[in-house]
Parts: sequence; structure tokens; C-alpha cells
Amino acid sequence: MKFNNSPIGIFDSGLGGLTVFKEIRKMLPCEDLIYFGDTARVPYGNKSKETIIRYSSEIFKFLTDKGVKIIVVACNTASSLALDDLRRNASVPVFGVIEPGAKKAVRASHGKNIAVIGTSATIKSRAYSIAIHKEIESLNGRAGGKPKSAGSFRIVEKACPLFVPLVEEGLLNEEITKNAINYYLSSVIAEKPSCLVLGCTHYPMLKDLILDAAGGNIEIIDSGVETARAVRDYLKENGMLKASGPSGGELFFVSDDMEKFKELGEKFLDRAIKNVSLAEIAK
Amino acid sequence: MKFNNSPIGIFDSGLGGLTVFKEIRKMLPCEDLIYFGDTARVPYGNKSKETIIRYSSEIFKFLTDKGVKIIVVACNTASSLALDDLRRNASVPVFGVIEPGAKKAVRASHGKNIAVIGTSATIKSRAYSIAIHKEIESLNGRAGGKPKSAGSFRIVEKACPLFVPLVEEGLLNEEITKNAINYYLSSVIAEKPSCLVLGCTHYPMLKDLILDAAGGNIEIIDSGVETARAVRDYLKENGMLKASGPSGGELFFVSDDMEKFKELGEKFLDRAIKNVSLAEIAK
Repeated sequence: MKFNNSPIGIFDSGLGGLTVFKEIRKMLPCEDLIYFGDTARVPYGNKSKETIIRYSSEIFKFLTDKGVKIIVVACNTASSLALDDLRRNASVPVFGVIEPGAKKAVRASHGKNIAVIGTSATIKSRAYSIAIHKEIESLNGRAGGKPKSAGSFRIVEKACPLFVPLVEEGLLNEEITKNAINYYLSSVIAEKPSCLVLGCTHYPMLKDLILDAAGGNIEIIDSGVETARAVRDYLKENGMLKASGPSGGELFFVSDDMEKFKELGEKFLDRAIKNVSLAEIAK
Repeated sequence: MKFNNSPIGIFDSGLGGLTVFKEIRKMLPCEDLIYFGDTARVPYGNKSKETIIRYSSEIFKFLTDKGVKIIVVACNTASSLALDDLRRNASVPVFGVIEPGAKKAVRASHGKNIAVIGTSATIKSRAYSIAIHKEIESLNGRAGGKPKSAGSFRIVEKACPLFVPLVEEGLLNEEITKNAINYYLSSVIAEKPSCLVLGCTHYPMLKDLILDAAGGNIEIIDSGVETARAVRDYLKENGMLKASGPSGGELFFVSDDMEKFKELGEKFLDRAIKNVSLAEIAK
């Protein structure tokens, strides 16, 4: 049996990717993980494609210089806009969060409406719509015979630009957050979607409030959970898992303000964070 | 009479500084103005002092390379944290927005409580408190005789980190914005301040809603207006005004996404914006 003991690299614009980190840690307890949060330039969701590609490429180099065996782009905005560029010259496999989330949405929807919420940049890119249609085509292809049409279901996409600042400010259970959720989601819920994709890695922190706003009658899809699953399966199938051992090590890097990252990051992970360093990036 | 026909340089982390730009334009209609908005790295309010000094210094160099005769730091966060550093090696005079706002607050308060709202970084720096106390000492000194104590008035400072994203998203008159204003300001208003300083250049866009929330019975101080006045007086006293002529020219530079800047910037200025260019900064 083959193994690969190098660490897994995970990055996001800030804290949000920690929800993906958490799922990867759950599924792969003995892997070493390196996380990078670009806190000097957060958020990405309101910036242009060119800028997001540039920022992502710098972080990508930082992580590959640390010898990671795989990179997880734990940021929907960067996954939407920079993944193709990153993959083009990559020396290691690169996983984004869009494709795993889209695949799960198709399985969960049973041909009914799918809702996707995310940052302005993610929604504007239509990355989820494209990935969902691609998955349906691929399923039709695999099934053989005459491809079925995508049917009459609709993909309802909605940008919720205030959710990231609300989460980054730690306002996780406040009235103002409930108001913001109702403000953005009432038109989405009116479309009676069968499932709702949390198309931003910050949003799982609002999952319960979102479920409440939707009246409970909807499947919430956390792209982070699906991504962690896809990464685990890929490493397994390709003989790239770490040889079993004690709990995996963890290193966290940020481009700004280690204390704030630590403080709020602990809310994300629901446990202590150690080993946070300032990275020489974004300089 | 002496004149100086070089342009005035104005910068902010993003769009907010346009409220200062607007006041400067009103008071100095024939001056040439160059504005820089650091839209690739906005916001500054949740970042560290070191990072804000670095970003501000880069923009400072960009503007001095354009031959400006004076620089206005039209950003409270950068004024709070980077002004001393910028002034240390500056070849041109540098104006921030804190000092003019603090001076006006002291005049308006008549010894009663003063409220200051701003970003997390501005409030954490206590820059307004320091400037207000300094102004009171200076007034006492000027009055001669035994200095009066600052009395029993209090400075009530409150960080309102959601206001910048609300304004940057153009949610200027929505229920969610009113909720956010009540959420942050109810404890401030309970202190019965005589005046409230808008310690962030985005906040004038919310002025009417803030006044409503405060029940109308308070003087709202716009640091931008006070800064424009201070800049005009300085240029006048130092023979640095532009020789009179037709309406002044305007150049706008951003580090990301010219279209978004133009679209929302027009809401800030309440008129068309021309001459927006992408600056080679933050690269």
C-alpha cells in the first residue's frame, strides 16, 4: 500500500475556510494540515476576477513551497474565479468547493428547484449553475441512451454580501443577523427549492438560522462537507493518505492580525487554535 | 499673491472618501483633484496598524509621484493609525480627518457628552478621544490662566463594523440598514450625547437614518465637512490655492474593479464620474 506523509494545504480569503478545515480534520484525523487565511485582503467576494486570481496564485505558491501534497481552495469565490488558472500549472492536485457542492445538490434535488447562495463574485460567475448543469449532463451520459433534458427545475441564485461581514464580526445569533437572512432569503424561499447550497465557506456558521428562516423544510448543502469527502476519497484512491499515526499536526498562517484570527477562528472550530503565524505574503 | 496650481491628492480604502472629495469640491470648485480608492484591499477597518501603514504609504507615494501639493487622508482608519508615519517623511502637507472632526465636536458639545462612531480599528485606536482631549487642553492653554478640567463630560465611542459593508453594497435606505443602526446606536443614544461624530467617511451616506435613530435631537458632525474646511483654510493661508479658472479637473484611480467604483461612486457624489483608471498598486 502506498502512502504520502506530506501535509494538505487549505486556503481561504479569511476565516471562512475553517469550516472546510474542520470537516477535513473530522474525516482525516491523522493528516497534517496547513491553513492559510488572507486576512490582510479579506474579503474576496466583492473584488474582480483578475485580483482574485493574483491573490490566489500568491497563496498557492506559498503552500506549494511548504511541500503540500494537495491544495484545497476552501473559498467559493476563489474556486469560482481562479481554479482553472491554478490548475493549469499546478504540480499538485487542486480541489475547489464548487464541484463537490454542485454534485451533492443534483443528487439531493430529485429534479426540483435548487437554491444557491454566495458572495457577489461567486453568484456573478454562475459557477454553481455551470457545475450543476455539467453534473446533470455527466449523469445522463453515464446512464447511457438518449440524454434526458435538465427538466423544468430552476437554479435560484442569490448573492448575500452581508453574510461574510456578519460572520467575520462574530454576530452569529443576533437579531440583526436574522434580519439580514430574511432580507436576502425571502425571495429564494418563495421559489420552493428542494435544497439550498451554502456557496460560501462562511455560511455554515449561519446554518441553523438559515434553516429556521426556510421553515426547516429544505435540505441545506454544506459545500465544505462535500469537499472534505471528495478530498478523502481522492487521497485514498491515489495512495496519498498519510500512514496511520497519532493526531495530525496543524499550522495556521495569516497575512494580518493573528490575534483576531485566533479569537474568531476558535468560534469556527469550537476549540483552541495554536500555531498561528504571520506569513510574508501580500507584501 | 502666491498660487500653486498642482492638484490636491485624496485617498481612502474604497469609496467612503468620496464624501470628503465632495465637500472639498464644493468649497474649492476650481482646484484639480486626484482621488485614489484602494478597492483591491478594502476595507481597512478590520486590519492591523502595520498593514494599514503599509497600504497607506504605497498610496502616498503614488499620489506624490503625481505631483500633488497636499494629501488628504480621507479615511478615518488610516488617519487614526498611519498619519504620524505618513507625516514623518512627507514632502507635502498631510491632512487627516480626525483632528478637524474632534475640534468641531469640542465646539459643538458645550461640555456635554460626545459620541463617536467608526470602524473597529478607528475606535480601538482611541484617536478621537485623544484628539478631543488635546483640543480641550489647547483651548484651555489659549484662554490663559488656570487650565479648566475637561469636566464631567464623557466620550462615548462605539465601533459599527457593519456600516461600511452596508454602504459599499448600496443598501442606503433599507430596513436592514435601519436595524443595524438601531443595533449599534441604542446604547450610544442612551448616554444622551450632545453631538455624534461620524468617524468614518462612509457614514455620511447614512446620516439621515442615523439622525432618525437618534430622534433628531443631536448634532451630527461630518468629519469630511470639517476636513474640507481645514484644507481650504490651510491652502489660503499658505498661498497654495490654485489661481482662479474654470471648474477643476478630476482624476479617479482605483486598485480594482473600475465599473463597481463608478456605479456606486456616482451614488456618493450624486452625479456622473468620469476618468476612472486602474492604478498599478497593490501588485
